[in-house]
Amino acid sequence: MSDAGILIRPATDGDWPAIWSIFHAVVSRGDTYTYAPDSSEADARRLWMGPGVSTFVAVDGADVVGTYVLKPNQPGLGAHVANAGYMVRPGAFGRGIGWAMGVHSLDAARSAGFRAMQFNAVVSTNDRAVALWRRLGFVVVGTIPAGFRHAVHGYVDLYVMHRFL
Amino acid sequence: MSDAGILIRPATDGDWPAIWSIFHAVVSRGDTYTYAPDSSEADARRLWMGPGVSTFVAVDGADVVGTYVLKPNQPGLGAHVANAGYMVRPGAFGRGIGWAMGVHSLDAARSAGFRAMQFNAVVSTNDRAVALWRRLGFVVVGTIPAGFRHAVHGYVDLYVMHRFL
Repeated sequence: MSDAGILIRPATDGDWPAIWSIFHAVVSRGDTYTYAPDSSEADARRLWMGPGVSTFVAVDGADVVGTYVLKPNQPGLGAHVANAGYMVRPGAFGRGIGWAMGVHSLDAARSAGFRAMQFNAVVSTNDRAVALWRRLGFVVVGTIPAGFRHAVHGYVDLYVMHRFL
Repeated sequence: MSDAGILIRPATDGDWPAIWSIFHAVVSRGDTYTYAPDSSEADARRLWMGPGVSTFVAVDGADVVGTYVLKPNQPGLGAHVANAGYMVRPGAFGRGIGWAMGVHSLDAARSAGFRAMQFNAVVSTNDRAVALWRRLGFVVVGTIPAGFRHAVHGYVDLYVMHRFL
């Protein structure tokens, strides 16, 4: 499923401009992430590379084609469950980059000692994401009715998805 | 259901010592909140009275007997759903303080323009809380299997609870 030329590695400060370009392109569409479409670069950097967040990039040669973050979903007594977020550069869809990052993140979460992974806010109309997570073993364990204000469709449901590691 | 002598009002900086006393007593038990049982006072203050958080106290005369926080559950395109957390001073249970804060918070959330309220991590063994939220119109919309490491019972489920406003 995944492109053999894709390498996934921890992000460095030098990757930030490329990550920000992807973050901004994805978030400004208002159809897959709750982050405000007009999120500032400073806000984005704090969210994506702030304390407690492990940040990775998917690279194709020198090009950053995707990025994901891994962190505890809850503090203290819920910190055995990981949370992650993934973004693929628009224009790089269909190359298995999401799948490759998903597989990588599950391994990284296991290595970090997490027992499960949880997504809190998968937009129900984001068919590509929902299908990807199902293929990677996640199940919908909750539905937040009208939890997302979609730029095109208005209020749509959010899914909570989960799998053990 | 609620004690006629209880008043609920916005918290001030001067309330912090009493709030911290409640926070520490509740969290250190490790049976109802994911916050680390040994959370520091600085961490607690940032969580409970930090930016973007509206903090309230329930008072009986000069005594702070409970506290709750209200904030958006998600940023940007999910910010129409409120999140809240409530703590009653141990020793003050059974006086309807949780109920009174619950009712107050629903009104406060409506006034602030939220369309719904969501709790992300109601400990499934916390019968008192689950029953209270049901009486206040919340329903379980999700279950995180083994999402909470309970100090006594080990890994138990977390509920996601939700109601429209």
